[in-house]
Amino acid sequence: MATAGKVIKCKAAVAWEPNKPLVIEEIEVAPPEANEIRIKIVATALCHTDLYHLLESMQPQGFPTVLGHEGAGIVESVGPGVSEYQQGDKVIPLFISQCRQCHFCKSPRSNQCSSIFSWISRHDAMAPPTSRFTCKGKELLQFVGTSTFSEYTVVNEMAVAKIDPMAPLDKVCLLGCGICTGYGAAVNTAKVEPGSTCAVFGLGAVGMAAVMGCKAAGAKRIIGIDINPEKFEKAKVFGATDFVNPKDHDKPISQVLIEMTKWGVDFSLECVGNVSVMRSALESCVQGYGVSVIVGWTDLRDIAIRPNQLISGRTWKGSTFGGFKGRDAVPQMVKVYMDKKLMLDEFITHHMTLDQINDVKTIFTTTQYGVFYVPHTS
Amino acid sequence: MATAGKVIKCKAAVAWEPNKPLVIEEIEVAPPEANEIRIKIVATALCHTDLYHLLESMQPQGFPTVLGHEGAGIVESVGPGVSEYQQGDKVIPLFISQCRQCHFCKSPRSNQCSSIFSWISRHDAMAPPTSRFTCKGKELLQFVGTSTFSEYTVVNEMAVAKIDPMAPLDKVCLLGCGICTGYGAAVNTAKVEPGSTCAVFGLGAVGMAAVMGCKAAGAKRIIGIDINPEKFEKAKVFGATDFVNPKDHDKPISQVLIEMTKWGVDFSLECVGNVSVMRSALESCVQGYGVSVIVGWTDLRDIAIRPNQLISGRTWKGSTFGGFKGRDAVPQMVKVYMDKKLMLDEFITHHMTLDQINDVKTIFTTTQYGVFYVPHTS
Repeated sequence: MATAGKVIKCKAAVAWEPNKPLVIEEIEVAPPEANEIRIKIVATALCHTDLYHLLESMQPQGFPTVLGHEGAGIVESVGPGVSEYQQGDKVIPLFISQCRQCHFCKSPRSNQCSSIFSWISRHDAMAPPTSRFTCKGKELLQFVGTSTFSEYTVVNEMAVAKIDPMAPLDKVCLLGCGICTGYGAAVNTAKVEPGSTCAVFGLGAVGMAAVMGCKAAGAKRIIGIDINPEKFEKAKVFGATDFVNPKDHDKPISQVLIEMTKWGVDFSLECVGNVSVMRSALESCVQGYGVSVIVGWTDLRDIAIRPNQLISGRTWKGSTFGGFKGRDAVPQMVKVYMDKKLMLDEFITHHMTLDQINDVKTIFTTTQYGVFYVPHTS
Repeated sequence: MATAGKVIKCKAAVAWEPNKPLVIEEIEVAPPEANEIRIKIVATALCHTDLYHLLESMQPQGFPTVLGHEGAGIVESVGPGVSEYQQGDKVIPLFISQCRQCHFCKSPRSNQCSSIFSWISRHDAMAPPTSRFTCKGKELLQFVGTSTFSEYTVVNEMAVAKIDPMAPLDKVCLLGCGICTGYGAAVNTAKVEPGSTCAVFGLGAVGMAAVMGCKAAGAKRIIGIDINPEKFEKAKVFGATDFVNPKDHDKPISQVLIEMTKWGVDFSLECVGNVSVMRSALESCVQGYGVSVIVGWTDLRDIAIRPNQLISGRTWKGSTFGGFKGRDAVPQMVKVYMDKKLMLDEFITHHMTLDQINDVKTIFTTTQYGVFYVPHTS
């Protein structure tokens, strides 16, 4: 093929500085090196964590960077040593690698791959040590190793899931983060039980996916909590049975939920990324055996709780990417979608192009449903 | 018998006010009312939670009271409606009731009995609503419903475990709190796995029992952490394999443990009751799947943690009384001891009498081993 082995020039949305609009630039994408794969991105969505990096944490060492980690594409070329993937494969880049060799990959209990590729050890910068991107003579970081806000990206094979060639990339891109994160938090991390009562705090895409996970696990009652009541109709589609708007109550939301359920909920999932909501979610659980899972991302401030909330028997957990080991699980989740046992289309509210990326932020904060766009393709 | 149905006058150590020495007083112990049992206390130990109430929380509404909740005795008489217990039975009073009827008693997942007898809903006062104690015309509260620092006490049958008539009360009294609390936290709450690495923070009686629980569960490596290195020899008796004195290190103890174990420990148990140690215990766990259990009691200040400590896959739990449902489990634990499969004698470092109760505090803070005394008996 024409581009293999050569530098590709293409468009990308560059975040030059924290808290500034992204700039559509022509960037250079180097050919993949050993064990790397260059991917033509076909579709990508925006996740709150992209905005967190740009607008909330604003760590200077994390810029300039190319954001985006919820995308899908087609292998353009592979570097030396790559045998599992080839040009033309449909793939989803993964923000947590799965090297299959490390302590964590070998453990059935964790998806926290510790390979040297991983960006996790540099979580302030939120990028792996190497990048294949340059622009105007400067190296650009690759946000969480994926950088899907670019027409092309280069990812280590440890962080690529090969999926069904029939999969519609403009839908399954959502499995690159939000849907697996919320769904897996309910199914894998909380381990929601049949007949249980669940509360999902925050009805963005992650929260909606958590609702869907609770439903899939057999929850009897699923209470959605959001300050925007317009989301309830959509939440019903995914399985929510009740809705609570904290603005309708003068008392703490944990008290409201305990009154609604007599003892508190069996499982709660925080899908906002707010330390106060994380506390509230834990306090909403039944003492004795309630389980609360932190799903939303933030790491700027401590979370806090009174010790007796745990001593009296609650469990506080968290998960990244829903506990899924991506190379193994994402192809399976694609299959579940193709078998019509998982909703994805219902999350999509907007279709946009890469040059509209700065508008996405506004739409995102207004609707907080899944928003995705298809970038220009060269 | 002579005393049944009559008020008993006997000696008790009365805590008239917070932060003052206990006073040996003659108190009146009323006959048991419906579903109550009057118990002649034969032996009792001192637990940190007694001192917490007296010296740390110092809630005015929790005084005057009779402390003590780690005791054993003999049924003196029973009130109307009691059929499961009779005069002469050997029993252990329980600071968590087991009514066998409520939502929590019926659940296999929790020991948080919600019966109206329970003091848990009044955890500032740490006493149930009723008391059978008076002294000098004043009602005395019954600390956590048990008040074992008295020659006689009255306890609701929901909070009494009937044990083997052959059991030595001066040993099995320790099963009334500390040993079940530590042992059960490892076995029931953390669910320590064979071959795992554990860290136990604080080597008092609860911590030593947690070490014993880790060992019983098959842990391969058990790291005891205490600022008093004299405790290590004793900890070895219960199964500790390594010892860390935080005073020997300039860096955070979590970093020391991560360096010792490469990734952090699989399970950590906080057996001190200190919010900073609780944080440290969680941070010492392996990311991805480490489990930290809060065992020590304090509830005056929040615990705090950075969200990513949980989001990256750790679990934070707590338990009361080791998760044991007391009426069912304490007789079984007594049996395990009688079968020589559980150490109790090894916890005992001092024998004292009730009038020496104020000396116990000094001994407790010096050695932090189990300390018990036999009160005067009438």
